[in-house]
Amino acid sequence: MRFVATLKARWSDANSLVCVGLDPEPSKFPAHLRNDPDAVFSFCRAIVDATADLVCCFKPQIAHFAALGAEDALQRLIAHIHNAHPGVPVILDAKRGDIGSTAQHYAAEAFDRYGADAVTANPYLGRDSVQPFLDRADKGVAILCHTSNPGAGDFQDLGVNGRPLYQHVAETVARQWNGNGNCALVVGATWPEQLRDVRAIVGDMPLLIPGVGAQGGDVQAVVSHGRTSNGAGLIISSSRAILYASPGEDFADAARTAAMELRDTINRYR
Amino acid sequence: MRFVATLKARWSDANSLVCVGLDPEPSKFPAHLRNDPDAVFSFCRAIVDATADLVCCFKPQIAHFAALGAEDALQRLIAHIHNAHPGVPVILDAKRGDIGSTAQHYAAEAFDRYGADAVTANPYLGRDSVQPFLDRADKGVAILCHTSNPGAGDFQDLGVNGRPLYQHVAETVARQWNGNGNCALVVGATWPEQLRDVRAIVGDMPLLIPGVGAQGGDVQAVVSHGRTSNGAGLIISSSRAILYASPGEDFADAARTAAMELRDTINRYR
Repeated sequence: MRFVATLKARWSDANSLVCVGLDPEPSKFPAHLRNDPDAVFSFCRAIVDATADLVCCFKPQIAHFAALGAEDALQRLIAHIHNAHPGVPVILDAKRGDIGSTAQHYAAEAFDRYGADAVTANPYLGRDSVQPFLDRADKGVAILCHTSNPGAGDFQDLGVNGRPLYQHVAETVARQWNGNGNCALVVGATWPEQLRDVRAIVGDMPLLIPGVGAQGGDVQAVVSHGRTSNGAGLIISSSRAILYASPGEDFADAARTAAMELRDTINRYR
Repeated sequence: MRFVATLKARWSDANSLVCVGLDPEPSKFPAHLRNDPDAVFSFCRAIVDATADLVCCFKPQIAHFAALGAEDALQRLIAHIHNAHPGVPVILDAKRGDIGSTAQHYAAEAFDRYGADAVTANPYLGRDSVQPFLDRADKGVAILCHTSNPGAGDFQDLGVNGRPLYQHVAETVARQWNGNGNCALVVGATWPEQLRDVRAIVGDMPLLIPGVGAQGGDVQAVVSHGRTSNGAGLIISSSRAILYASPGEDFADAARTAAMELRDTINRYR
């Protein structure tokens, strides 16, 4: 099934807009896992199995694997999600962006090598740099619009023809790049007013929202500014606040509790 | 030695502004290498050894390795360059960009795991997304400014306060991000007028110029618009036109000839 259709089914079936971000950092793993030679996979699999019924998708962040040389663990993790939890899509958070001939190799990396259902991409290089992702109609492409970090505004807020650059990106993606209906946009939870403006531009396009949890984004503001008319349209991602909810052997149970609390908090405001 | 100092020494010692881009595509390898189980490494090592005395640096493009699951070959290739050709820096072309806490992992990937001397980065997320790279004063950070691809202008040419976004990026990097003197900018050879404008903004900052060769950038225009007053300041990168100069067993010799011709053409206009 196509990514956006899978996502919509999942929003409804799981009654959840929560995305668990998989950002493994071995120094934060519980002590009992530190001598596990396959700790990255073991940790992430435990989180996945403890939270899969509570989420609309998972989002592994590739730098956390690449810095450790753990590509093989990432590959097995995505295969595990697909096998053990069918219907839960995987967004590979890679924020790729390069000239078209190179972007084809990044698309092969995300979709063929890793089997991800969607990937995050950077718009700065323009349309042909994203085209190899867009062309995969069965896959999703979440394009950076207004990111969650403190420096997001350095360029994204610059005025272009009377409105900020991120709005120009939103309109370009919605009007010109979404011919296959497989685009999403990334808008940080830390910028609720910008989220409202993006929602007004893009109709019911899915929005991937990092920045609740450790980064401090306000859930009520995110939901009220970002939801679609049917109370969905959002992929609200939390990583550290769920993954490292407990430093002990109960880390997976604690992650489940944190994910459930986030789901319920979100659902109160939908 | 710091990246920019190494680069300057190399411009002078090798009398070359040529960078050979290492973009392995097994379908283009000579037939005799196709059954080599380590073909990616063997091919790239042969190119490196045939051209090292002719170049100011090498630039492996990471997507070409990642799509193949060939991270190990990339790691051994960079180690080989450092061991066999000391003084020739390696720019890892990865165009990374993410929030600060994640960018630290990308910096670890590029500099610690792979041992690259510099990395390419995307400015769209703003300063804190590049800070972990900038903080490595011994390493170089080549930030995308005006890229070589057809869609470069989609956002990079948009007018911001009366001038295009890419010029705003150039000025921000030169005036605010270059405190460690380790920044460079990426400007495509296919946009010589934009190259002239960037050079006027950034003084003698190194400029990484992809897009000669297969992408059709004009060498004379690049050198005349981009050089510094001492006839250097440029890292002129060619990948496909050198790597695949011959489809036969003489591929490394043909690559050497192509690299030498490019060096000599560039030097005629310096």
